[in-house]
Amino acid sequence: MSDTYVHGYQPRENERLQDQAGTLVDLLHSDTAYPRGSTVLEAGCGVGAQTLTLAQRSPEARFTSVDVSAESVAEAKRRGDTAGLTNVEFRQGDIFDLPFDAESFDHVFVCFVLEHLPRPVEALTILKRLLRPGGTITVIEGDHGSAYFYPDSAAAHAAIECQVTLQREAGGNSLIGRQIYPLMAEAGLDALRVSPRMVYVDSSRPDLVDGFTKEDVHRDDRGDSRVRARGGSDRAAEVRCRCPRPHRTTEADGVFCYTFFKGVGVKRRRA
Amino acid sequence: MSDTYVHGYQPRENERLQDQAGTLVDLLHSDTAYPRGSTVLEAGCGVGAQTLTLAQRSPEARFTSVDVSAESVAEAKRRGDTAGLTNVEFRQGDIFDLPFDAESFDHVFVCFVLEHLPRPVEALTILKRLLRPGGTITVIEGDHGSAYFYPDSAAAHAAIECQVTLQREAGGNSLIGRQIYPLMAEAGLDALRVSPRMVYVDSSRPDLVDGFTKEDVHRDDRGDSRVRARGGSDRAAEVRCRCPRPHRTTEADGVFCYTFFKGVGVKRRRA
Repeated sequence: MSDTYVHGYQPRENERLQDQAGTLVDLLHSDTAYPRGSTVLEAGCGVGAQTLTLAQRSPEARFTSVDVSAESVAEAKRRGDTAGLTNVEFRQGDIFDLPFDAESFDHVFVCFVLEHLPRPVEALTILKRLLRPGGTITVIEGDHGSAYFYPDSAAAHAAIECQVTLQREAGGNSLIGRQIYPLMAEAGLDALRVSPRMVYVDSSRPDLVDGFTKEDVHRDDRGDSRVRARGGSDRAAEVRCRCPRPHRTTEADGVFCYTFFKGVGVKRRRA
Repeated sequence: MSDTYVHGYQPRENERLQDQAGTLVDLLHSDTAYPRGSTVLEAGCGVGAQTLTLAQRSPEARFTSVDVSAESVAEAKRRGDTAGLTNVEFRQGDIFDLPFDAESFDHVFVCFVLEHLPRPVEALTILKRLLRPGGTITVIEGDHGSAYFYPDSAAAHAAIECQVTLQREAGGNSLIGRQIYPLMAEAGLDALRVSPRMVYVDSSRPDLVDGFTKEDVHRDDRGDSRVRARGGSDRAAEVRCRCPRPHRTTEADGVFCYTFFKGVGVKRRRA
């Protein structure tokens, strides 16, 4: 593949592309496009929330989307069929034990997954092994420590703290966004560039409220299913019922800030 | 004046302009330019750190830059002379008691000032009175609650908490960035758009580390002089000596995030 086909190497380019972002989907994905005929592994597809966007934005690439949860994969497949996707194969599989040969894929895409894993660098190292030299790994994660509000809200902070604690108890890390650069560097990826994607909402920007609300729901669904897949309880849903959702702040003419981080790294070509 | 001369109304435009930002000065100011012959009041110029950038980027506009501290104004004037500025008049004056007629200026610019004031909406309302209908007010402020790091650092959080406390004791608010939209809305400004300007630094982005470090020093200088001007002690400098600077995190191959907010609003034309 040619590097010129895959956007997202340069942070300046990433920031420019935010110009086009009317919704959170645009903000996160508008600079990801895979070339005709390339093979892409989506590791941790959950119920397919990102898969639909990915596959529709790169209709001539071929995706293999895997998730550890057979239940989620079934739901993802159902959604893909409903959307008429023809360039995605869904498979059940554990990132730490995937049934693929080394150097099977041109690119790897990992979105809202590392936050759930106790050993994210090991996961990246395994995924890098599946990648052909010169191919890219794209990682997108949020960071709950990036959330703040006006008016400030003890309830909102409590809600976030709940989610951070639950994630940590489940072996994950809700503050992982800020760590994408050092994690990808430790996994030995080259030409590494990370760009923040900040969601800023005030009452003049209802479009981003909508985008964030929907996406947030998707993320919660996936988190819960992963916690359950690991033998976790339904405490997440229980706690969330008692805690106001952070984005509620914006409904009272307030301000809400949250930042996602997107990293793109390259597997070094052999000398 | 024509609205088309003044950039910064649209957040999409602001975000696009971040594309050009190699340093913090670019990130904050690249989308501010005033047209030939327009008159601009810079309220709270301190020692002129922003004045030089403003005046050099709009060489055919005429600036009046005021600060409550005669000492700061003298230093600003010295810097302006050294830089060869010919389009700036420096004057000592208190924002709450300025010696200008109503509707004297085409535009108003306020950067890192509201954070120091106990009544920011009153200040904006007073400044709006000095503005001709159809003119703009531009406000730039940081928000210390937007700072986070990897690795996380108790010392860095303590340093930030020191600054927030000192600012509050001096009657100010170091968490004001997130409030720019509601504050400007309360002051009755129209066509109001606020855009965040996030500084993200990892070891691949040393240019922004440099920009932030320099700017941070300027801000501290101004804050201290304002605290002193209000009869405050030198405790700020004292505490800072004991607290590590937040940006030190980046020196150990870490990650540092901080967000400034820039708002532009218009004084409504008479019907």
